[in-house]
Amino acid sequence: MKRLSIWLAAPLLAGLAHADYRLETVAEGLEHPWSLAFLPDGGMLVTERPGRLRLVDADGALREAPVAGVPEVFAEAQAGLFEVMLAPDFADSGLLYLSYAYGDITANNTCLGRARFNGEGLSGGEVLFCASPAKRGAAHYGGRMALLPDDTLVLTLGDGFDYREQAQNAGNHLGSLVRLSLDGRVPDDNPFLGDDRARPELYSIGHRNVQGIVYDDQRDELLINEHGPRGGDELNRIQPGANYGWPLTTHGVDYTGARITPFRELPAFTPPLLHWTPSIAPSGMALYRGDAFPDWQGDLFVSALAGQQVRRLIRDEGRVVDQQVLFEELGARIRDVRVGPDGYLYLLTDHADGALIRVVPAS
Amino acid sequence: MKRLSIWLAAPLLAGLAHADYRLETVAEGLEHPWSLAFLPDGGMLVTERPGRLRLVDADGALREAPVAGVPEVFAEAQAGLFEVMLAPDFADSGLLYLSYAYGDITANNTCLGRARFNGEGLSGGEVLFCASPAKRGAAHYGGRMALLPDDTLVLTLGDGFDYREQAQNAGNHLGSLVRLSLDGRVPDDNPFLGDDRARPELYSIGHRNVQGIVYDDQRDELLINEHGPRGGDELNRIQPGANYGWPLTTHGVDYTGARITPFRELPAFTPPLLHWTPSIAPSGMALYRGDAFPDWQGDLFVSALAGQQVRRLIRDEGRVVDQQVLFEELGARIRDVRVGPDGYLYLLTDHADGALIRVVPAS
Repeated sequence: MKRLSIWLAAPLLAGLAHADYRLETVAEGLEHPWSLAFLPDGGMLVTERPGRLRLVDADGALREAPVAGVPEVFAEAQAGLFEVMLAPDFADSGLLYLSYAYGDITANNTCLGRARFNGEGLSGGEVLFCASPAKRGAAHYGGRMALLPDDTLVLTLGDGFDYREQAQNAGNHLGSLVRLSLDGRVPDDNPFLGDDRARPELYSIGHRNVQGIVYDDQRDELLINEHGPRGGDELNRIQPGANYGWPLTTHGVDYTGARITPFRELPAFTPPLLHWTPSIAPSGMALYRGDAFPDWQGDLFVSALAGQQVRRLIRDEGRVVDQQVLFEELGARIRDVRVGPDGYLYLLTDHADGALIRVVPAS
Repeated sequence: MKRLSIWLAAPLLAGLAHADYRLETVAEGLEHPWSLAFLPDGGMLVTERPGRLRLVDADGALREAPVAGVPEVFAEAQAGLFEVMLAPDFADSGLLYLSYAYGDITANNTCLGRARFNGEGLSGGEVLFCASPAKRGAAHYGGRMALLPDDTLVLTLGDGFDYREQAQNAGNHLGSLVRLSLDGRVPDDNPFLGDDRARPELYSIGHRNVQGIVYDDQRDELLINEHGPRGGDELNRIQPGANYGWPLTTHGVDYTGARITPFRELPAFTPPLLHWTPSIAPSGMALYRGDAFPDWQGDLFVSALAGQQVRRLIRDEGRVVDQQVLFEELGARIRDVRVGPDGYLYLLTDHADGALIRVVPAS
């Protein structure tokens, strides 16, 4: 298997070993798979954007019939079923969370639902949250989730593409992160609660389209990546109540080449930890904690769509000091990257005939 | 004498009495007078923008010869000698502060100087601060000063007109307020000191052209007014370290009519207490504490250039609840408004043949 070691502008880390790996296809024939979750029994759940939840059994077999009981989703362009995430007490409760687009082309937005999974289907589904207002079009939904150690969850939301100025308006949910209790209520320490004009669910604002999120428990840091326009993809460290500046600050320009703002950074806004200009189109994100690849310990992995790669981010005291481009040999848009309980990386390729791929040590 | 009572959109305060007043010309033949200070002996110092400091004796006579020892100023268009302010210990020390433009048309900015006044001339002049960087052109200097109760002073600075984006850059002084000790040093509790990239003198940023400032000791509030572009003049309450949003937020548009920003307010920026749209072009500002006009107790008075008036702002718990247009009968651009130790208002008209006018009760 070809080993990639395309090193970017940052200086090489002296003595850094390059891990040898092998790519294994676990499942094929997934239609635009978007996210996956690891079940306690060794199986996996995989979402497909058109609105199906698929089960991969512990033996690696993809069940043909999708899991029943998934909420009705609005599936078009970027819209559809997004993330599946197990509740912290899933082993007992069977509860899982799904994020998805709901509505129609004239009025839709990102919603969050919860249901009970019995190994076959979903039951007891309830809608916990829908981003407001509903908006026109089928782009920029966010839709990723992370659990925080205080038993709250953070859901990422997009700016709806045609509504970018609304990312600066705390009176709606466009272009933000929201934080909810596990049963969908507003935690009483949410950062915008003191502002009568702000939505109480908000956790941070000024985002464009956040499609990767990771909570680093060792550093107690919530990290997200977000799509910039043309250039200006960002990795951000989330501070509750902070404003990340879109569309008033960006390292990118409009798809037309037009300047969106004269500002790359401003004192009022939290700057990114790093930006990718030109864009890689970051999608999922994972933090490596595992035994299979000792050299990757503590590194971030960011999957990329247009970039057709996974970007490994090597950190030192939280600062990204080096980057490595991985898995370009797949020649695929990569929608998600996860670390399994086995310490292997799992990738989802974003294609009509998409695949679930496992990265294992070469030897 | 004509009594004006042009009430604006805000509801009338029930039972509010309209003060009867008389306008008296104290001195004429002042060339674009900009500010005045009341001397302990009953006299006054008046700056003229071309660079002269004039003395009005206690008997009201304007001395023909200007006060000697004024610093060299760059005088052109809006540039020149701005404010004169006495030190808190002036009666003992004779120290006074002058703000002024320094440089030439290609490179100039607002400076602050201090000198000793002996009743005739200035001596021991020293330059305490010059805004950086020097910029081209002759517009938007700020130049007003206020004393704070902790023996620091705040100096207002403009965005230099052609440099409006720099009002968002804490790495320079354009479009900001700065706070200095009375001998020109940086107070060790200035709000931007923790930011290595920021200028240590900064007190607030995101201003366009602040030409009125008042410290309200009863409410412990620092208030400023600033020129908007076309529309969007503002009254702001200053919080140390805050960003007032120019040019990312404004209720005005460009002089051409072009939109500067889609945002009137944003969560990241401190909104104005009120805005004047269309513009009145606010200049000086005073807080009325005196016995001559009991009805005006605690009101703010804002002089206006294009508006050719003084705007009286009636407050309730710090909120402006009503406004009254005064002194339009002068038909003059008014550069400054002050409250004398006698409780009378003093106005300076902004003309080549400008006047110092005193407002006294009609009866």
